Amino acid sequence: MILELAENGGESMTGTLARSLGGGGGIGGGEELLCPPTNFAMVDRGIYRSGFPNSDNLGFLDALNLRSIIYLCPEPYPEVNAEFVKSRGIRLFQFGIEGSKESFVTIPKDTIMEALRVLLDIRNHPVLIHCKRGKHRTGCLVGCFRKLQNWCLSSVFEEYLRFAAAKARVSDLRFIEMFDVSCMMQCVLGIIYRYHGCGSQARRISYRDIS
Amino acid sequence: MILELAENGGESMTGTLARSLGGGGGIGGGEELLCPPTNFAMVDRGIYRSGFPNSDNLGFLDALNLRSIIYLCPEPYPEVNAEFVKSRGIRLFQFGIEGSKESFVTIPKDTIMEALRVLLDIRNHPVLIHCKRGKHRTGCLVGCFRKLQNWCLSSVFEEYLRFAAAKARVSDLRFIEMFDVSCMMQCVLGIIYRYHGCGSQARRISYRDIS
Repeated sequence: MILELAENGGESMTGTLARSLGGGGGIGGGEELLCPPTNFAMVDRGIYRSGFPNSDNLGFLDALNLRSIIYLCPEPYPEVNAEFVKSRGIRLFQFGIEGSKESFVTIPKDTIMEALRVLLDIRNHPVLIHCKRGKHRTGCLVGCFRKLQNWCLSSVFEEYLRFAAAKARVSDLRFIEMFDVSCMMQCVLGIIYRYHGCGSQARRISYRDIS
Repeated sequence: MILELAENGGESMTGTLARSLGGGGGIGGGEELLCPPTNFAMVDRGIYRSGFPNSDNLGFLDALNLRSIIYLCPEPYPEVNAEFVKSRGIRLFQFGIEGSKESFVTIPKDTIMEALRVLLDIRNHPVLIHCKRGKHRTGCLVGCFRKLQNWCLSSVFEEYLRFAAAKARVSDLRFIEMFDVSCMMQCVLGIIYRYHGCGSQARRISYRDIS
């Protein structure tokens, strides 16, 4: 049984279903199961989050057809991960935010802004955001992204807590609350202008009197 | 400042960002904040999950441009929700699974299969799955969907537990584990055949010798 599927964008359930049918893992048996990294989830179309992917997770990541990875730790990428991104032509954006067990250590705002710039640029999608456990650094970045999406703070916090669970930090919640999305204004407008010029067949932006 | 965005498919972060810029909620101030339903998350492209949406959440649901809702409770839809889906032309698929506090009460397999058939059909996307709290009934349906996607069981369980947290039920985990995805084989193939005939410009499926 051979089944092929091609589509724009890469990521979707149908691709995986087709693979299941083709190889038979889920339905026919035999194909290796896909193991997402710990704390994996879809944030939005073309945006994923997780904890640190290990060698068991590379088959799953492969299925996402990632164009880039936002890596939020200062440590160098392990050889197996570095080899994976190189072989797949995935662009690695590293923003070295120190992990800390101290709840009073806050996340650096400028670094989060830089990471947001990469995250918002759809030319980098599909993109995976990850740190070590996918709780604190990743949670802060996603929290700021949700504020840009105009989510109410209680929903932003609910999502943060779902991933951080017992490891939640008040300092992270405070950082997200205090993050002023207006500082991203120029960046977002810049992306929309570029986007408009992209000529994507799937989307169209028109704007009047942006001031 | 007026900003318009149109795209195929409806759901994406860019739409929300554009609204934020246009109305100014996130960045300029003024527009009403978006409140996702409790336990809201994106499952896959065009598939969302949540707890029961109340009237505060309808603005957010509106932004998702839903084509359908899979509602997993036996109770009639409240008037405000019924009015919302009617006015937006959203198709409501109701599968009445009894909610129970008893951990030995298992989920009906046939009903989950029926719901999966609706869920897998991309003509129903974007689709929101919800029950009351977005933990048990929704968690079981999403768990079976992940098995169809060929996820390893530990990752399926991790996701279930992220939403159910302290309310997790062993009977749900057992149901997901025992759910035999091969029973969905005909359904998935049927969908792929229909899909192939759809002529979607975004995707293409070719197949040889499916036996």
